[in-house]
Amino acid sequence: MPLNIDFVTPFVKSTVDFMTTMAQVEVKAGKPFAKTDITAMGEVTGIISMVGEKHTASLAISFTKSAIVAITNNMLGGTIKELEMDVIDTVGEVTNIVTGGAKKLLVLKGYKFGISLPSVILGKGHSVVHTTKAPVVVIPFSTDNGDFFIEICSMSLKKEKVN
Amino acid sequence: MPLNIDFVTPFVKSTVDFMTTMAQVEVKAGKPFAKTDITAMGEVTGIISMVGEKHTASLAISFTKSAIVAITNNMLGGTIKELEMDVIDTVGEVTNIVTGGAKKLLVLKGYKFGISLPSVILGKGHSVVHTTKAPVVVIPFSTDNGDFFIEICSMSLKKEKVN
Repeated sequence: MPLNIDFVTPFVKSTVDFMTTMAQVEVKAGKPFAKTDITAMGEVTGIISMVGEKHTASLAISFTKSAIVAITNNMLGGTIKELEMDVIDTVGEVTNIVTGGAKKLLVLKGYKFGISLPSVILGKGHSVVHTTKAPVVVIPFSTDNGDFFIEICSMSLKKEKVN
Repeated sequence: MPLNIDFVTPFVKSTVDFMTTMAQVEVKAGKPFAKTDITAMGEVTGIISMVGEKHTASLAISFTKSAIVAITNNMLGGTIKELEMDVIDTVGEVTNIVTGGAKKLLVLKGYKFGISLPSVILGKGHSVVHTTKAPVVVIPFSTDNGDFFIEICSMSLKKEKVN
């Protein structure tokens, strides 16, 4: 199954928009690559699903502790140091807003999705496995306070899934 | 927001059906309760989303290592001892089939959903936070080889989400 790169540009654009405007964090997107093994992610990961009649996709956005703590402090004007509730809420919010922004751009390409509630995974050294044969695209991002990355797995559906 | 118990019976029934027929594992459902804090889950967790026009829900099914290894060996006729790829695949499959079974029962109650691809989370002591103000229902299950539990978080949507 070929890598679906339709999703890359909308998510890069939506992430950069969010980080530079709402979080006021300078961010640089790296070169996307295909995920080939089960690698451990950051310490905190937001997961969200996009479910449509013809396509389904799942997204994981995983942060190093230093990156998400800095982003949260920028957004809330705080001096948080640990992965407390405000940070978890921020991960959920970033996941939701970035996906919502990408969705608007994907609509222009003919994709129609509903978006799930985000879930946030906590735990040092956790990994996320997307249970599908479709390739997973990883987009790395770097900030002055550490890295984060987005994994996207998208699939065309043969039959209608929303009924 | 009140606990939505519409989801409890369909998921209990679907889980017990799956475990007794496809996995040939005797399972006992415990009393459902409301999740009130961030508690660590099992060692491996399947996550799936249900996205409809009027409702959205997310489900996490989390297994102790001993429980899921026994279930996998029952299903595949193997002698696996660790959380290897077959076990991860089984978690994805259980998550998918149990949710598909519950969906059929929820349709009879007027719920209409599309189901996302499942994701599987690995990592000792990870936790899953459902980022919503809606209460999370936990249904505990026990087997001879250990416990697993299902967390369900469901929410009515004010506006249409699948567009």
